[in-house]
Amino acid sequence: MFISNDKFRIDDLQVKNLKLYQDPEGFCFGIDAVLLASFASKFIKNKDKVMDLCTGSGIIPLLVWAKANPNKIFGVEINEKTFNMANSSIKLNKLEEKITLLNLDINMIGKEYNQKFDCLTVNPPYTKNNGGLKNEIKDKMIARHEIFCTLEDIIKVSSILLKDKGKFFLIHKSSRIDEILLAMNKYKIAPKEIQFIHPKENEDSNLVLIYGLKNAGSFVKVLKPLIVYKKNGEYTKDVLEYYGEMKAWILT
Amino acid sequence: MFISNDKFRIDDLQVKNLKLYQDPEGFCFGIDAVLLASFASKFIKNKDKVMDLCTGSGIIPLLVWAKANPNKIFGVEINEKTFNMANSSIKLNKLEEKITLLNLDINMIGKEYNQKFDCLTVNPPYTKNNGGLKNEIKDKMIARHEIFCTLEDIIKVSSILLKDKGKFFLIHKSSRIDEILLAMNKYKIAPKEIQFIHPKENEDSNLVLIYGLKNAGSFVKVLKPLIVYKKNGEYTKDVLEYYGEMKAWILT
Repeated sequence: MFISNDKFRIDDLQVKNLKLYQDPEGFCFGIDAVLLASFASKFIKNKDKVMDLCTGSGIIPLLVWAKANPNKIFGVEINEKTFNMANSSIKLNKLEEKITLLNLDINMIGKEYNQKFDCLTVNPPYTKNNGGLKNEIKDKMIARHEIFCTLEDIIKVSSILLKDKGKFFLIHKSSRIDEILLAMNKYKIAPKEIQFIHPKENEDSNLVLIYGLKNAGSFVKVLKPLIVYKKNGEYTKDVLEYYGEMKAWILT
Repeated sequence: MFISNDKFRIDDLQVKNLKLYQDPEGFCFGIDAVLLASFASKFIKNKDKVMDLCTGSGIIPLLVWAKANPNKIFGVEINEKTFNMANSSIKLNKLEEKITLLNLDINMIGKEYNQKFDCLTVNPPYTKNNGGLKNEIKDKMIARHEIFCTLEDIIKVSSILLKDKGKFFLIHKSSRIDEILLAMNKYKIAPKEIQFIHPKENEDSNLVLIYGLKNAGSFVKVLKPLIVYKKNGEYTKDVLEYYGEMKAWILT
Protein backbone atom coordinates (compact mmCIF):
# COMPACT_ATOMS: atom_id res chain seq x y z
CA MET A 1 0.00 0.00 0.00
CA PHE A 2 3.02 2.37 0.05
CA ILE A 3 5.92 3.26 -2.20
CA SER A 4 9.07 3.88 -0.18
CA ASN A 5 11.54 6.62 -1.10
CA ASP A 6 14.68 7.76 0.64
CA LYS A 7 13.12 9.10 3.78
CA PHE A 8 9.36 9.04 3.68
CA ARG A 9 6.88 6.57 2.35
CA ILE A 10 3.99 7.58 0.10
CA ASP A 11 0.60 6.11 1.00
CA ASP A 12 -2.18 5.86 -1.56
CA LEU A 13 -5.32 6.93 0.38
CA GLN A 14 -7.62 5.13 -2.08
CA VAL A 15 -9.92 8.13 -2.36
CA LYS A 16 -9.87 10.63 -5.23
CA ASN A 17 -6.40 9.40 -6.13
CA LEU A 18 -4.90 11.13 -3.07
CA LYS A 19 -1.33 10.37 -2.02
CA LEU A 20 0.20 11.16 1.37
CA TYR A 21 3.82 11.35 2.52
CA GLN A 22 4.38 9.76 5.89
CA ASP A 23 7.46 9.38 8.06
CA PRO A 24 7.65 5.76 9.21
CA GLU A 25 9.91 6.91 12.07
CA GLY A 26 7.51 9.69 13.09
CA PHE A 27 3.83 9.74 13.89
CA CYS A 28 1.66 8.11 11.20
CA PHE A 29 -2.02 8.97 10.96
CA GLY A 30 -4.47 6.54 12.49
CA ILE A 31 -8.17 5.78 12.55
CA ASP A 32 -8.71 8.97 14.64
CA ALA A 33 -7.95 11.27 11.70
CA VAL A 34 -10.24 9.33 9.37
CA LEU A 35 -13.11 9.28 11.85
CA LEU A 36 -12.78 13.01 12.58
CA ALA A 37 -12.59 13.95 8.89
CA SER A 38 -15.71 11.89 8.10
CA PHE A 39 -17.62 13.08 11.17
CA ALA A 40 -16.88 16.73 10.31
CA SER A 41 -17.49 16.34 6.57
CA LYS A 42 -21.17 15.56 7.20
CA PHE A 43 -21.54 19.20 8.33
CA ILE A 44 -19.09 21.04 6.04
CA LYS A 45 -20.57 22.88 3.05
CA ASN A 46 -19.04 23.82 -0.30
CA LYS A 47 -18.98 27.52 0.55
CA ASP A 48 -17.13 26.95 3.85
CA LYS A 49 -13.67 28.07 4.85
CA VAL A 50 -12.16 25.35 7.08
CA MET A 51 -9.23 25.44 9.54
CA ASP A 52 -7.41 22.30 10.75
CA LEU A 53 -5.26 22.74 13.86
CA CYS A 54 -2.34 20.40 14.69
CA THR A 55 -2.56 19.21 11.11
CA GLY A 56 0.45 16.83 11.21
CA SER A 57 0.85 15.02 7.89
CA GLY A 58 -2.05 17.04 6.43
CA ILE A 59 -4.29 13.97 6.39
CA ILE A 60 -7.37 15.84 7.66
CA PRO A 61 -7.25 18.73 5.11
CA LEU A 62 -6.82 16.12 2.35
CA LEU A 63 -9.70 13.94 3.53
CA VAL A 64 -11.98 16.92 4.19
CA TRP A 65 -11.25 18.12 0.66
CA ALA A 66 -12.07 14.64 -0.73
CA LYS A 67 -15.25 14.19 1.31
CA ALA A 68 -16.75 17.71 1.54
CA ASN A 69 -14.93 19.87 -1.04
CA PRO A 70 -15.15 23.15 0.90
CA ASN A 71 -14.16 26.49 -0.60
CA LYS A 72 -10.77 26.65 1.12
CA ILE A 73 -8.86 24.70 3.81
CA PHE A 74 -6.07 25.94 6.06
CA GLY A 75 -3.89 23.73 8.23
CA VAL A 76 -1.46 24.70 11.01
CA GLU A 77 1.53 22.61 12.09
CA ILE A 78 4.21 23.73 14.56
CA ASN A 79 6.83 21.08 13.77
CA GLU A 80 8.85 22.29 10.76
CA LYS A 81 9.85 18.82 9.59
CA THR A 82 6.26 17.58 9.70
CA PHE A 83 5.06 20.81 8.06
CA ASN A 84 7.53 20.36 5.16
CA MET A 85 6.40 16.77 4.65
CA ALA A 86 2.72 17.81 4.74
CA ASN A 87 3.40 20.59 2.24
CA SER A 88 5.02 18.05 -0.08
CA SER A 89 1.81 16.01 0.06
CA ILE A 90 -0.29 19.05 -0.85
CA LYS A 91 2.00 19.72 -3.86
CA LEU A 92 2.06 16.05 -4.87
CA ASN A 93 -1.76 16.17 -5.07
CA LYS A 94 -1.72 19.56 -6.83
CA LEU A 95 -4.00 21.03 -4.17
CA GLU A 96 -2.01 24.22 -3.41
CA GLU A 97 -5.00 26.34 -4.51
CA LYS A 98 -7.38 24.60 -2.13
CA ILE A 99 -5.18 23.84 0.88
CA THR A 100 -2.78 26.29 2.56
CA LEU A 101 -0.54 25.09 5.35
CA LEU A 102 1.04 27.38 7.95
CA ASN A 103 4.14 26.49 9.99
CA LEU A 104 3.06 28.21 13.21
CA ASP A 105 2.43 27.75 16.91
CA ILE A 106 -1.38 27.80 17.17
CA ASN A 107 -1.08 30.32 19.99
CA MET A 108 0.66 32.71 17.60
CA ILE A 109 -1.86 32.69 14.75
CA GLY A 110 -2.26 36.29 13.68
CA LYS A 111 -5.35 38.46 13.90
CA GLU A 112 -5.92 38.20 10.14
CA TYR A 113 -7.38 34.75 10.83
CA ASN A 114 -9.68 35.70 13.74
CA GLN A 115 -13.35 34.86 13.19
CA LYS A 116 -12.63 33.90 9.58
CA PHE A 117 -13.59 30.21 9.65
CA ASP A 118 -16.95 28.47 9.19
CA CYS A 119 -15.57 25.16 10.45
CA LEU A 120 -12.57 24.00 12.45
CA THR A 121 -11.22 20.47 12.90
CA VAL A 122 -8.64 19.34 15.42
CA ASN A 123 -7.04 15.99 16.28
CA PRO A 124 -4.68 17.28 18.97
CA PRO A 125 -2.04 15.60 21.13
CA TYR A 126 -4.02 13.53 23.64
CA THR A 127 -1.68 13.22 26.57
CA LYS A 128 -0.86 15.82 29.21
CA ASN A 129 2.78 16.78 29.24
CA ASN A 130 3.13 15.73 32.87
CA GLY A 131 1.46 12.36 32.36
CA GLY A 132 1.98 9.17 30.41
CA LEU A 133 5.15 7.80 28.88
CA LYS A 134 7.13 10.16 26.72
CA ASN A 135 7.81 8.86 23.27
CA GLU A 136 11.53 8.89 22.57
CA ILE A 137 11.33 10.29 19.08
CA LYS A 138 10.85 14.06 19.17
CA ASP A 139 8.39 14.31 16.26
CA LYS A 140 6.14 11.63 17.68
CA MET A 141 6.34 13.29 21.09
CA ILE A 142 5.12 16.61 19.68
CA ALA A 143 2.24 14.86 17.96
CA ARG A 144 1.17 12.89 21.02
CA HIS A 145 1.89 15.09 24.05
CA GLU A 146 0.72 18.53 25.03
CA ILE A 147 4.17 20.05 24.66
CA PHE A 148 3.37 23.11 22.59
CA CYS A 149 -0.34 23.45 23.28
CA THR A 150 -2.77 22.28 25.97
CA LEU A 151 -6.38 21.22 25.49
CA GLU A 152 -7.43 24.63 26.79
CA ASP A 153 -5.13 26.45 24.33
CA ILE A 154 -6.70 24.50 21.48
CA ILE A 155 -10.27 25.30 22.45
CA LYS A 156 -9.43 28.95 23.17
CA VAL A 157 -7.77 29.37 19.76
CA SER A 158 -10.62 27.50 18.05
CA SER A 159 -13.13 29.91 19.51
CA ILE A 160 -11.06 32.89 18.34
CA LEU A 161 -10.76 31.52 14.79
CA LEU A 162 -14.42 30.52 14.35
CA LYS A 163 -17.13 32.85 13.09
CA ASP A 164 -20.30 33.30 15.17
CA LYS A 165 -22.15 29.95 14.91
CA GLY A 166 -19.00 28.39 13.41
CA LYS A 167 -18.67 24.62 13.71
CA PHE A 168 -16.01 22.95 15.85
CA PHE A 169 -14.99 19.29 15.44
CA LEU A 170 -12.70 17.51 17.87
CA ILE A 171 -11.54 13.97 18.53
CA HIS A 172 -9.98 13.35 21.94
CA LYS A 173 -9.66 10.88 24.80
CA SER A 174 -12.96 10.01 26.49
CA SER A 175 -11.24 10.16 29.86
CA ARG A 176 -10.94 13.93 29.41
CA ILE A 177 -14.60 14.56 28.47
CA ASP A 178 -15.18 16.74 31.55
CA GLU A 179 -12.13 18.94 30.83
CA ILE A 180 -13.19 19.24 27.18
CA LEU A 181 -16.75 20.34 28.04
CA LEU A 182 -15.52 22.76 30.71
CA ALA A 183 -13.11 24.42 28.27
CA MET A 184 -15.75 24.53 25.52
CA ASN A 185 -18.13 26.23 27.97
CA LYS A 186 -15.42 28.73 28.99
CA TYR A 187 -14.79 29.70 25.35
CA LYS A 188 -18.47 29.71 24.29
CA ILE A 189 -18.54 26.62 22.08
CA ALA A 190 -21.70 24.63 22.91
CA PRO A 191 -21.51 20.87 22.39
CA LYS A 192 -24.25 19.78 19.99
CA GLU A 193 -23.34 16.17 19.15
CA ILE A 194 -21.09 13.74 21.02
CA GLN A 195 -20.21 10.24 19.82
CA PHE A 196 -18.25 7.92 22.07
CA ILE A 197 -15.96 5.40 20.38
CA HIS A 198 -15.49 1.96 21.95
CA PRO A 199 -12.85 -0.50 20.65
CA LYS A 200 -15.34 -3.34 21.14
CA GLU A 201 -19.00 -3.65 22.14
CA ASN A 202 -18.30 -4.58 25.76
CA GLU A 203 -15.39 -2.23 26.37
CA ASP A 204 -15.09 1.24 27.88
CA SER A 205 -14.81 4.14 25.47
CA ASN A 206 -11.29 5.30 24.56
CA LEU A 207 -12.05 8.17 22.19
CA VAL A 208 -14.81 10.71 21.65
CA LEU A 209 -15.96 12.76 18.66
CA ILE A 210 -17.45 16.17 19.44
CA TYR A 211 -19.32 18.66 17.27
CA GLY A 212 -19.77 22.08 18.86
CA LEU A 213 -21.29 25.36 17.74
CA LYS A 214 -19.84 28.74 18.71
CA ASN A 215 -22.24 30.94 20.71
CA ALA A 216 -25.10 28.39 20.58
CA GLY A 217 -27.50 27.28 23.31
CA SER A 218 -27.18 24.17 25.40
CA PHE A 219 -28.68 20.89 24.17
CA VAL A 220 -26.51 17.88 23.42
CA LYS A 221 -27.29 14.81 21.35
CA VAL A 222 -25.28 11.83 22.55
CA LEU A 223 -25.21 9.69 19.40
CA LYS A 224 -25.26 5.91 19.22
CA PRO A 225 -21.88 4.54 20.29
CA LEU A 226 -19.35 3.89 17.55
CA ILE A 227 -17.98 0.38 18.03
CA VAL A 228 -14.72 -0.17 16.10
CA TYR A 229 -14.29 -3.95 16.01
CA LYS A 230 -16.69 -6.85 15.82
CA LYS A 231 -16.12 -9.83 18.09
CA ASN A 232 -14.19 -11.56 15.31
CA GLY A 233 -11.75 -8.64 15.09
CA GLU A 234 -13.11 -7.26 11.80
CA TYR A 235 -14.14 -3.62 11.49
CA THR A 236 -17.85 -2.97 12.12
CA LYS A 237 -20.20 -1.73 9.41
CA ASP A 238 -20.35 1.68 11.14
CA VAL A 239 -16.57 2.12 10.99
CA LEU A 240 -16.45 1.03 7.36
CA GLU A 241 -19.07 3.68 6.64
CA TYR A 242 -16.82 6.30 8.23
CA TYR A 243 -13.97 5.07 6.00
CA GLY A 244 -16.20 5.20 2.90
CA GLU A 245 -14.13 4.65 -0.27
CA MET A 246 -11.03 4.46 1.92
CA LYS A 247 -12.10 1.10 3.24
CA ALA A 248 -10.22 -0.44 0.33
CA TRP A 249 -7.14 1.01 2.01
CA ILE A 250 -7.67 -0.53 5.44
CA LEU A 251 -8.93 -3.86 4.13
CA THR A 252 -5.91 -4.55 1.93
CA MET B 1 -48.33 -7.67 40.05
CA PHE B 2 -50.17 -5.21 42.34
CA ILE B 3 -52.89 -5.35 44.96
CA SER B 4 -55.17 -2.32 44.73
CA ASN B 5 -56.55 -0.58 47.80
CA ASP B 6 -58.73 2.51 48.12
CA LYS B 7 -56.24 5.03 46.88
CA PHE B 8 -52.84 3.54 46.21
CA ARG B 9 -51.73 0.27 44.76
CA ILE B 10 -49.13 -1.92 46.44
CA ASP B 11 -46.44 -3.34 44.16
CA ASP B 12 -44.45 -6.43 45.11
CA LEU B 13 -40.85 -5.55 44.11
CA GLN B 14 -39.88 -9.26 43.92
CA VAL B 15 -36.72 -8.65 45.93
CA LYS B 16 -36.34 -9.40 49.67
CA ASN B 17 -40.13 -9.46 49.94
CA LEU B 18 -40.29 -5.66 49.53
CA LYS B 19 -43.64 -3.97 48.94
CA LEU B 20 -44.12 -0.43 47.61
CA TYR B 21 -47.14 1.89 47.68
CA GLN B 22 -47.64 3.73 44.43
CA ASP B 23 -50.19 6.29 43.32
CA PRO B 24 -51.51 5.24 39.91
CA GLU B 25 -52.61 8.85 39.34
CA GLY B 26 -49.23 10.25 40.33
CA PHE B 27 -45.72 9.46 39.21
CA CYS B 28 -44.82 5.76 39.33
CA PHE B 29 -41.17 4.71 39.43
CA GLY B 30 -39.59 3.58 36.21
CA ILE B 31 -36.49 1.83 34.96
CA ASP B 32 -34.45 4.93 35.89
CA ALA B 33 -34.79 4.29 39.63
CA VAL B 34 -33.85 0.63 39.27
CA LEU B 35 -30.81 1.39 37.12
CA LEU B 36 -29.60 4.11 39.50
CA ALA B 37 -30.06 1.95 42.61
CA SER B 38 -28.15 -0.95 41.03
CA PHE B 39 -25.41 1.28 39.61
CA ALA B 40 -24.88 2.94 43.02
CA SER B 41 -25.13 -0.30 45.01
CA LYS B 42 -21.97 -1.63 43.36
CA PHE B 43 -20.07 1.09 45.29
CA ILE B 44 -22.04 1.30 48.57
CA LYS B 45 -20.54 -0.47 51.61
CA ASN B 46 -22.19 -1.87 54.72
CA LYS B 47 -20.73 0.85 56.94
CA ASP B 48 -22.02 3.67 54.72
CA LYS B 49 -24.58 6.33 55.53
CA VAL B 50 -26.56 7.06 52.35
CA MET B 51 -28.75 10.03 51.36
CA ASP B 52 -31.35 9.87 48.57
CA LEU B 53 -32.58 13.25 47.28
CA CYS B 54 -35.96 13.66 45.52
CA THR B 55 -36.85 10.25 46.87
CA GLY B 56 -40.45 10.14 45.60
CA SER B 57 -42.09 6.81 46.44
CA GLY B 58 -38.98 5.75 48.37
CA ILE B 59 -38.07 3.20 45.70
CA ILE B 60 -34.35 4.03 45.73
CA PRO B 61 -33.83 3.75 49.53
CA LEU B 62 -35.70 0.42 49.45
CA LEU B 63 -33.68 -0.98 46.54
CA VAL B 64 -30.36 0.30 47.93
CA TRP B 65 -31.24 -1.40 51.23
CA ALA B 66 -32.03 -4.64 49.38
CA LYS B 67 -28.95 -4.56 47.17
CA ALA B 68 -26.22 -3.02 49.38
CA ASN B 69 -27.54 -3.04 52.98
CA PRO B 70 -25.76 0.11 54.13
CA ASN B 71 -25.70 1.20 57.77
CA LYS B 72 -28.41 3.85 57.37
CA ILE B 73 -30.38 5.48 54.55
CA PHE B 74 -32.07 8.89 54.52
CA GLY B 75 -34.48 10.10 51.88
CA VAL B 76 -35.82 13.61 51.25
CA GLU B 77 -39.13 14.39 49.54
CA ILE B 78 -40.71 17.85 49.26
CA ASN B 79 -44.24 16.78 48.27
CA GLU B 80 -46.17 15.95 51.47
CA LYS B 81 -48.59 13.55 49.80
CA THR B 82 -45.75 11.60 48.16
CA PHE B 83 -43.74 11.70 51.41
CA ASN B 84 -46.67 10.21 53.37
CA MET B 85 -47.10 7.43 50.82
CA ALA B 86 -43.33 6.69 50.88
CA ASN B 87 -43.35 6.62 54.68
CA SER B 88 -46.21 4.09 54.57
CA SER B 89 -44.02 1.88 52.37
CA ILE B 90 -41.13 2.08 54.87
CA LYS B 91 -43.51 1.06 57.69
CA LEU B 92 -45.11 -1.68 55.59
CA ASN B 93 -41.63 -3.18 55.13
CA LYS B 94 -40.73 -2.62 58.82
CA LEU B 95 -37.63 -0.66 57.79
CA GLU B 96 -38.11 2.38 60.05
CA GLU B 97 -34.80 1.63 61.79
CA LYS B 98 -32.85 1.55 58.53
CA ILE B 99 -34.59 4.20 56.43
CA THR B 100 -35.56 7.69 57.61
CA LEU B 101 -37.53 9.95 55.33
CA LEU B 102 -37.65 13.74 55.65
CA ASN B 103 -40.44 15.94 54.26
CA LEU B 104 -38.24 18.87 53.27
CA ASP B 105 -37.17 21.16 50.45
CA ILE B 106 -33.64 19.94 49.63
CA ASN B 107 -32.47 23.55 49.73
CA MET B 108 -33.61 23.73 53.38
CA ILE B 109 -31.83 20.64 54.74
CA GLY B 110 -30.32 21.69 58.07
CA LYS B 111 -26.67 21.89 58.98
CA GLU B 112 -26.93 18.74 61.09
CA TYR B 113 -26.74 16.80 57.81
CA ASN B 114 -23.78 18.65 56.28
CA GLN B 115 -20.86 16.39 55.33
CA LYS B 116 -22.50 13.44 57.05
CA PHE B 117 -22.97 11.10 54.07
CA ASP B 118 -20.64 8.56 52.47
CA CYS B 119 -22.91 8.19 49.45
CA LEU B 120 -25.71 10.16 47.82
CA THR B 121 -28.17 9.05 45.14
CA VAL B 122 -30.50 11.26 43.15
CA ASN B 123 -33.03 10.65 40.39
CA PRO B 124 -34.22 14.25 40.04
CA PRO B 125 -36.87 15.92 37.88
CA TYR B 126 -35.38 15.93 34.38
CA THR B 127 -37.11 18.82 32.68
CA LYS B 128 -36.41 22.52 33.06
CA ASN B 129 -39.35 24.44 34.43
CA ASN B 130 -39.42 26.70 31.40
CA GLY B 131 -39.24 23.87 28.89
CA GLY B 132 -41.28 20.86 27.82
CA LEU B 133 -44.96 20.17 28.36
CA LYS B 134 -46.26 20.59 31.87
CA ASN B 135 -48.00 17.53 33.23
CA GLU B 136 -51.51 18.41 34.36
CA ILE B 137 -51.39 16.50 37.62
CA LYS B 138 -49.52 18.46 40.28
CA ASP B 139 -47.72 15.50 41.89
CA LYS B 140 -46.42 14.24 38.57
CA MET B 141 -45.38 17.78 37.68
CA ILE B 142 -43.25 18.10 40.83
CA ALA B 143 -41.61 14.77 40.10
CA ARG B 144 -40.83 15.56 36.48
CA HIS B 145 -40.12 19.28 36.32
CA GLU B 146 -37.57 21.48 38.04
CA ILE B 147 -40.22 23.34 40.03
CA PHE B 148 -38.72 23.17 43.51
CA CYS B 149 -35.09 22.49 42.63
CA THR B 150 -32.84 22.95 39.63
CA LEU B 151 -30.04 20.65 38.50
CA GLU B 152 -27.57 23.11 40.02
CA ASP B 153 -29.44 23.13 43.37
CA ILE B 154 -29.24 19.35 43.46
CA ILE B 155 -25.52 19.19 42.80
CA LYS B 156 -24.81 22.05 45.22
CA VAL B 157 -26.76 20.37 48.03
CA SER B 158 -25.19 16.98 47.20
CA SER B 159 -21.74 18.46 47.62
CA ILE B 160 -22.73 20.01 50.97
CA LEU B 161 -24.14 16.72 52.27
CA LEU B 162 -21.26 14.48 51.16
CA LYS B 163 -18.15 13.83 53.22
CA ASP B 164 -14.72 14.44 51.66
CA LYS B 165 -14.33 11.71 48.98
CA GLY B 166 -18.03 10.91 49.36
CA LYS B 167 -19.69 9.16 46.41
CA PHE B 168 -22.34 10.83 44.25
CA PHE B 169 -24.72 8.89 41.97
CA LEU B 170 -27.03 10.58 39.48
CA ILE B 171 -29.29 9.54 36.63
CA HIS B 172 -30.34 12.33 34.27
CA LYS B 173 -31.02 13.22 30.65
CA SER B 174 -28.03 12.76 28.33
CA SER B 175 -28.96 16.00 26.57
CA ARG B 176 -27.90 17.85 29.74
CA ILE B 177 -24.51 16.12 30.14
CA ASP B 178 -22.62 19.41 29.71
CA GLU B 179 -24.71 21.22 32.35
CA ILE B 180 -24.27 18.27 34.72
CA LEU B 181 -20.48 18.20 34.35
CA LEU B 182 -20.22 21.99 34.67
CA ALA B 183 -22.23 21.98 37.91
CA MET B 184 -20.26 19.01 39.27
CA ASN B 185 -17.03 20.88 38.56
CA LYS B 186 -18.39 24.03 40.24
CA TYR B 187 -19.24 22.10 43.41
CA LYS B 188 -16.08 19.94 43.44
CA ILE B 189 -17.57 16.56 42.54
CA ALA B 190 -15.27 14.90 39.97
CA PRO B 191 -16.94 12.51 37.53
CA LYS B 192 -15.27 9.08 37.76
CA GLU B 193 -17.60 6.81 35.76
CA ILE B 194 -20.22 7.70 33.15
CA GLN B 195 -22.54 5.22 31.47
CA PHE B 196 -24.79 6.33 28.64
CA ILE B 197 -28.12 4.54 28.27
CA HIS B 198 -29.54 3.98 24.77
CA PRO B 199 -33.09 2.65 24.24
CA LYS B 200 -31.80 0.51 21.35
CA GLU B 201 -28.41 -0.26 19.83
CA ASN B 202 -28.75 2.17 16.94
CA GLU B 203 -30.41 5.00 18.84
CA ASP B 204 -29.11 8.15 20.50
CA SER B 205 -28.72 8.07 24.27
CA ASN B 206 -31.66 9.34 26.33
CA LEU B 207 -30.32 8.88 29.87
CA VAL B 208 -26.95 8.85 31.61
CA LEU B 209 -25.69 7.33 34.86
CA ILE B 210 -22.91 9.22 36.62
CA TYR B 211 -20.67 8.29 39.54
CA GLY B 212 -18.72 11.19 41.01
CA LEU B 213 -16.30 11.60 43.90
CA LYS B 214 -16.20 14.73 46.06
CA ASN B 215 -12.84 16.54 45.99
CA ALA B 216 -11.20 13.99 43.68
CA GLY B 217 -8.94 14.51 40.66
CA SER B 218 -10.04 14.47 37.04
CA PHE B 219 -10.07 11.17 35.12
CA VAL B 220 -13.32 9.75 33.75
CA LYS B 221 -14.11 6.22 32.63
CA VAL B 222 -16.84 6.22 29.99
CA LEU B 223 -18.27 2.72 30.43
CA LYS B 224 -19.65 0.48 27.71
CA PRO B 225 -23.07 1.78 26.62
CA LEU B 226 -26.10 0.33 28.35
CA ILE B 227 -28.57 -0.74 25.66
CA VAL B 228 -32.10 -1.27 27.06
CA TYR B 229 -33.92 -3.25 24.38
CA LYS B 230 -32.84 -5.88 21.90
CA LYS B 231 -34.04 -5.63 18.31
CA ASN B 232 -36.95 -7.95 19.15
CA GLY B 233 -38.14 -5.59 21.91
CA GLU B 234 -36.96 -7.78 24.80
CA TYR B 235 -34.71 -6.39 27.55
CA THR B 236 -30.99 -6.94 26.95
CA LYS B 237 -28.88 -9.17 29.20
CA ASP B 238 -27.17 -6.06 30.63
CA VAL B 239 -30.47 -4.51 31.71
CA LEU B 240 -31.64 -7.77 33.25
CA GLU B 241 -28.40 -7.82 35.24
CA TYR B 242 -29.20 -4.35 36.57
CA TYR B 243 -32.65 -5.63 37.58
CA GLY B 244 -31.15 -8.71 39.28
CA GLU B 245 -33.80 -10.61 41.25
CA MET B 246 -36.30 -7.91 40.27
CA LYS B 247 -36.34 -9.18 36.72
CA ALA B 248 -39.15 -11.50 37.77
CA TRP B 249 -41.10 -8.29 38.32
CA ILE B 250 -40.57 -6.79 34.88
CA LEU B 251 -40.89 -10.04 32.99
CA THR B 252 -44.33 -10.95 34.40
